[in-house]
Amino acid sequence: MPNSSTYFLPQGFRTAGIHCGIKSNQSARDLAVFLSESDCIAAGVFTTNKVCGAPVQISRERVPGENVRAIVINSGNSNACTGEQGLADARTMTARIAEEINSPAESVLVCSTGVIGVPLPVERICDHVPELFENLGETPEHLQHAAQAMMTTDTFPKIISRYVNLDGGTITLTGVAKGAAMIAPNMATMLGVVMSDVKLTPAQAEDLLPIAVNQSFNCISVEGHTSTSDTVLLMANGQSNVGLDDKGDLAQFQAAVTTLCTDLAHMIIRDAEGAEHFITVDVEGARTFEDAEKIAHEVANDVLVKTAVTGNDPNWGRIVSACGRTGCIESEAEVSLAINNHAVFKKGKPVNFDENVVSKAMKTGEVILDITLNQGNGRWRIWTCDLTSEYVRLNSEYTT
Amino acid sequence: MPNSSTYFLPQGFRTAGIHCGIKSNQSARDLAVFLSESDCIAAGVFTTNKVCGAPVQISRERVPGENVRAIVINSGNSNACTGEQGLADARTMTARIAEEINSPAESVLVCSTGVIGVPLPVERICDHVPELFENLGETPEHLQHAAQAMMTTDTFPKIISRYVNLDGGTITLTGVAKGAAMIAPNMATMLGVVMSDVKLTPAQAEDLLPIAVNQSFNCISVEGHTSTSDTVLLMANGQSNVGLDDKGDLAQFQAAVTTLCTDLAHMIIRDAEGAEHFITVDVEGARTFEDAEKIAHEVANDVLVKTAVTGNDPNWGRIVSACGRTGCIESEAEVSLAINNHAVFKKGKPVNFDENVVSKAMKTGEVILDITLNQGNGRWRIWTCDLTSEYVRLNSEYTT
Repeated sequence: MPNSSTYFLPQGFRTAGIHCGIKSNQSARDLAVFLSESDCIAAGVFTTNKVCGAPVQISRERVPGENVRAIVINSGNSNACTGEQGLADARTMTARIAEEINSPAESVLVCSTGVIGVPLPVERICDHVPELFENLGETPEHLQHAAQAMMTTDTFPKIISRYVNLDGGTITLTGVAKGAAMIAPNMATMLGVVMSDVKLTPAQAEDLLPIAVNQSFNCISVEGHTSTSDTVLLMANGQSNVGLDDKGDLAQFQAAVTTLCTDLAHMIIRDAEGAEHFITVDVEGARTFEDAEKIAHEVANDVLVKTAVTGNDPNWGRIVSACGRTGCIESEAEVSLAINNHAVFKKGKPVNFDENVVSKAMKTGEVILDITLNQGNGRWRIWTCDLTSEYVRLNSEYTT
Repeated sequence: MPNSSTYFLPQGFRTAGIHCGIKSNQSARDLAVFLSESDCIAAGVFTTNKVCGAPVQISRERVPGENVRAIVINSGNSNACTGEQGLADARTMTARIAEEINSPAESVLVCSTGVIGVPLPVERICDHVPELFENLGETPEHLQHAAQAMMTTDTFPKIISRYVNLDGGTITLTGVAKGAAMIAPNMATMLGVVMSDVKLTPAQAEDLLPIAVNQSFNCISVEGHTSTSDTVLLMANGQSNVGLDDKGDLAQFQAAVTTLCTDLAHMIIRDAEGAEHFITVDVEGARTFEDAEKIAHEVANDVLVKTAVTGNDPNWGRIVSACGRTGCIESEAEVSLAINNHAVFKKGKPVNFDENVVSKAMKTGEVILDITLNQGNGRWRIWTCDLTSEYVRLNSEYTT
């Protein structure tokens, strides 16, 4: 559990998280709201899966937006594969929240995460909206409650806050995420909410978020499965009155958002069920960055590479073979590999290394696979985790 | 262990399998030869992995061929990632066999399977060639010995023989395979040898084999990993004097080879380490067969689908989501799914089914996932197995 003193809300934001009765556990929060007292510039990045939840379809219609006031999120039910009724239910959820703040339904965004194919108990949600609003507040505890209400199989809420000093003054950036990156039973979704009191233009918001997501949440992978509901939303209400007028400020804010998202992404990997190792796959020297990305993904998602790491086995053969499978190299002669800074394979040839030493380094739980090609300047980095018997147990013993 | 009376060698073929000392277990065979007393028409299909073993590179140069006499195979060492020395060693192996039969080295094909990156003990192999030839024979036992000498982590040799009645007479077809489809520790390879006394033209051989392999060995998948050494070789010596002169005969022989390879492929899946379920993924109604293939692969290699099957969980959400991830469908409304003939999802909507009944049907260990789209006539079928804690244990506890 993160220390609550390390996070806080930007000016003008309040949050709440309560139990409304979707999760069977009475003490588990399952309904959250992230509310700004004034209109926000909002942007969103959504799953590329063609099978996507109703909330994804509704929120996608409403961003980018200039008059967004709130995000409502429920856990325990993803409202996916629920047809026309699901779309109507997602709309109803946003309308009910909007009613409380005298705004149009379009000013509310929505996310749902949990089991799929089960009708959303939308009445139960609507009935609890007054209680949700009674619980609104701006303290770290209120933020934590909202983060908890997004959780499914997460073992801890994932929250990060940062102050960013810009030319015009200091702004606040707070991010919340949930998800065990599809590692969890039954379609666990990755959700992220980024709030700031910075003053953005719609174009800035729309440009900023995909860049940040691409270098953070899209660089984590547990088993390569994109869920039906993955969503990252950004709300900026401008209450700091600090804008991003010059290029330097824009770059600095972009970096801050990207770092925030990266830190949240790492928290997701560290919370991946059954995981014992945090793995960084770092590819450089590829022909293009697309090639580097392809190689990094292939290695990161390779079941044999993952299980080798589980066993602290510096099995370079599995890694080099995964590189070969991408078609991005002509032969192993182009490949060098280091595991936790120990060279194990150099330009196509095995290096004589002490397996016990490298294995011991892997036992720390932090594993860095440096793959260096001699083709060009393409680089990409991905974070992932290993594959353990516990993962299989969790995902096979869970019954719908 | 298959009943030895069910398999036999085509006319003019002899085989042997002995222990030459590559495997540490003294009673484990690790050197095999498949020999025809006269020249064969030969064809080959090889791994598409850019990182490929030296034997793959040497054999690839020698097929298609008209004067092939033998295939030599060792297990325990894959002679991959071994550089120039590896290529020289693979050539030496073939030259040493060729010397015994007074043929040019080019008349011998070679395969190696086992650990990678370790120099091949080629002298040990050469020293044992006389013993190998002393053990040549044409009985089912000789065939079994050769099949055993190809094995790495296989628990039983995989051998199938068939008589095929053609217009000109009866021919014999015998196939041998090894491989736990990359499920085994350290790059287990899939190898296949198909022998026949049919009279083929080089063009027929070259056309036949890829079609058979594409519909059989390429339709099995344990975790989607193409190894560095996968090879299927065909030798036909014509000693039956029965050719494939008319179209009907050609089609019949093609079907026989495809069926033989399919049966061998199924034996590989059934021998996959840790596997508890044999899974058939059957896609029809896709826009094109390429789309159907893409969907079938995505579902078959999905770790969440595999673990759901392990737990006998009819978790249609994971399967439908995997379909969506391919981009080959526009939405779940195009998808219907049956598990072991029980409809669970129909045109985008969950079907109300008895989970206990479907789960019980899955417990038989045979699981059929029928995915039906409403787009066109594209179909594809893949066979795979589930993912168990035992798989993870085997692949993580193995140490290089």
